[in-house]
Amino acid sequence: MRDVCIIGIGQTPLGELWDRSLRHLAFDALQAAANDAGLAEAGIDRPDALFVGNMLSARTIDQAQLGALIADFCGWRGIEAATVEAACASGGAAFQAGVRAVASGMVDVAAVCGVEKMTDVGKDEITSALATAADADYEVVHGVTFVALNALVMQRYMYEYDIPHEAFANFAVNAHQNAVNNPNAMFRRAIKAETYNKAAMIAPPVNLFDSSPVCDGAAAAILCPLEMARDLSNVIPVRVLASTTGTDSLNLDDRHDMLSLNAARISVQKAYDIAGVGPEDIDLFELHDAFTIMATLSLEASGFAERGHGTDLARSGEIAIGGRVPICTMGGLKARGHPVGATGVYGIVDAVTQLRGEAGENQVQGAGIAMAQNIGGTGSTVVTHILGV
Amino acid sequence: MRDVCIIGIGQTPLGELWDRSLRHLAFDALQAAANDAGLAEAGIDRPDALFVGNMLSARTIDQAQLGALIADFCGWRGIEAATVEAACASGGAAFQAGVRAVASGMVDVAAVCGVEKMTDVGKDEITSALATAADADYEVVHGVTFVALNALVMQRYMYEYDIPHEAFANFAVNAHQNAVNNPNAMFRRAIKAETYNKAAMIAPPVNLFDSSPVCDGAAAAILCPLEMARDLSNVIPVRVLASTTGTDSLNLDDRHDMLSLNAARISVQKAYDIAGVGPEDIDLFELHDAFTIMATLSLEASGFAERGHGTDLARSGEIAIGGRVPICTMGGLKARGHPVGATGVYGIVDAVTQLRGEAGENQVQGAGIAMAQNIGGTGSTVVTHILGV
Repeated sequence: MRDVCIIGIGQTPLGELWDRSLRHLAFDALQAAANDAGLAEAGIDRPDALFVGNMLSARTIDQAQLGALIADFCGWRGIEAATVEAACASGGAAFQAGVRAVASGMVDVAAVCGVEKMTDVGKDEITSALATAADADYEVVHGVTFVALNALVMQRYMYEYDIPHEAFANFAVNAHQNAVNNPNAMFRRAIKAETYNKAAMIAPPVNLFDSSPVCDGAAAAILCPLEMARDLSNVIPVRVLASTTGTDSLNLDDRHDMLSLNAARISVQKAYDIAGVGPEDIDLFELHDAFTIMATLSLEASGFAERGHGTDLARSGEIAIGGRVPICTMGGLKARGHPVGATGVYGIVDAVTQLRGEAGENQVQGAGIAMAQNIGGTGSTVVTHILGV
Repeated sequence: MRDVCIIGIGQTPLGELWDRSLRHLAFDALQAAANDAGLAEAGIDRPDALFVGNMLSARTIDQAQLGALIADFCGWRGIEAATVEAACASGGAAFQAGVRAVASGMVDVAAVCGVEKMTDVGKDEITSALATAADADYEVVHGVTFVALNALVMQRYMYEYDIPHEAFANFAVNAHQNAVNNPNAMFRRAIKAETYNKAAMIAPPVNLFDSSPVCDGAAAAILCPLEMARDLSNVIPVRVLASTTGTDSLNLDDRHDMLSLNAARISVQKAYDIAGVGPEDIDLFELHDAFTIMATLSLEASGFAERGHGTDLARSGEIAIGGRVPICTMGGLKARGHPVGATGVYGIVDAVTQLRGEAGENQVQGAGIAMAQNIGGTGSTVVTHILGV
């Protein structure tokens, strides 16, 4: 198995990007990543393969087969290409496919692109499309939406551990604070805890600031074997130390314990074992804060807090840049934005930005090892990557 | 890179399976494959990872995230899982992901399942859903369907090489003949060339027997490293000698030459190079006869016929069992059935059946090397596998 590293990253701004189609967004991110890797200067006119992370395009823009479509639109007609889907964990799963392709020796230069176009359809259709991440036969058939499922988990958490709603505020405050310095973020405005506390309820107890926004965006990375990176690139190669996936039932009611986020526990434990590190070694954690309750459960499942104490970590300020485990350092899903199939690749891109020391005012000092986690459904597929320089 | 082999295969019957849901179909195929591999006897209670090939479920049954869903439904909750999509080449692309995972050393036992549930929606919706394989912005926006796109290619072919419509008859005759002895096939009735010639036109010149049927079905395979297979299994391990993908534009009008099937040429040439074989070494070819024109172009692009002479091969009878290059030996997409995201895995399963000498009355004598090809769109993604014993 070959060691794999990331030699280029790229991203588009996130938001309601009505002037850019899906293929344009993917092109922008991939072009930026290829330029960042210096492929052209190295005489490499195209990657050998493209792995696209996407969840919704067959519904929101009536387009499947994004792999070949985007490869062609980038001027790479002919290369291997496919789409990888695992609901909101599609980006992480596509990145894993890229890592595998290079690790196996079957591909030398792999491109990964997470892309999603969510704002071309109305609210009802996007709500229905997002609900395909839940169990159609056992959950959605009863009329539940994806926000409502997260509300059920949050309600149970608050009841089980006697946690007040305001305990979750700092996840939103932290994300918005970090997004201020991210020029690509959707919401670059800091908020106070009072703003969170006064926000409109969407599906109680989930309020507007507990949930991440619907938006468009694309992020990309270029991968190659470590030995090739040494010759190829002017940038610091970032090594993929572990790439793991865990799963759980789609339907919440079928889990023995809906608060344990078992798929994350499986994925993270494997990742720690493979990388030979533990939570104390992680300098920053790009977690999947689609909802504040998911951020809480992820911190607990990943070994950063005991069960029922995820919000303590938030309240203590230890999740901020400079804290014990900085999370969502460029704004996270909450404030940077959550274009669902792209999100996992944005997390990788943000982690690489930190490890290269290019995060500007948001730089985590001395960042040497970063973890990026991507969650599909209500914790049904969890992909974890540990990266290092 | 580790050598990878197939140690188990499974499939469901194909047809309008209204009594089986998608998850049941996947379970049936995977369970059969796991039993075939003898996993339980070897003390292996589950694979390490599951790769699902599927194109349409987010639209036809409102269900995404099939990886975790099916893993759980098989009793394998927790294992790595994801879906791979490349339109009708989804099954082949998922199989390739499984090969990569094992080859890389990151996964020991990988399960692959192609599954599609097409008959739960009406004709308009399935036509729209299938059209997502074409370019939404440049083709489908004008109202073209997928059958119509194939009709354009067939019309051009007939004009360019002065080929009459009846020249394509033997592709359908051969497929139906081979399906008679396949208990899982959708159409087990032999047809005569006259039946083909008299069939109703769907989108001229594509008639009913030029096109494969909409249906439900699932096929599965279990993969592991060759060294493990030697200890593990009572069956003959079938080696994966090459696994390659080529791409082309989605939209037909953007190709320099719509009759050359360039993605197949790229994929097949790479596969021949990697496996160290040529068309003369291929004992049987499970090609992608979604339409008779695609069978024709595939034979030409894969080195079995000169350009414009694919139908000669059909007319000569050399595509039959016992001929120079037997194709669609268990009925192909035309008569076995074409559940789009599953088709690529059915092709692998049929090839393995032949290589093991288990094809009964349809056995290709002395079959040692088989090729399976899976086409997405009008030749936009082509995945080729060469297998050998």
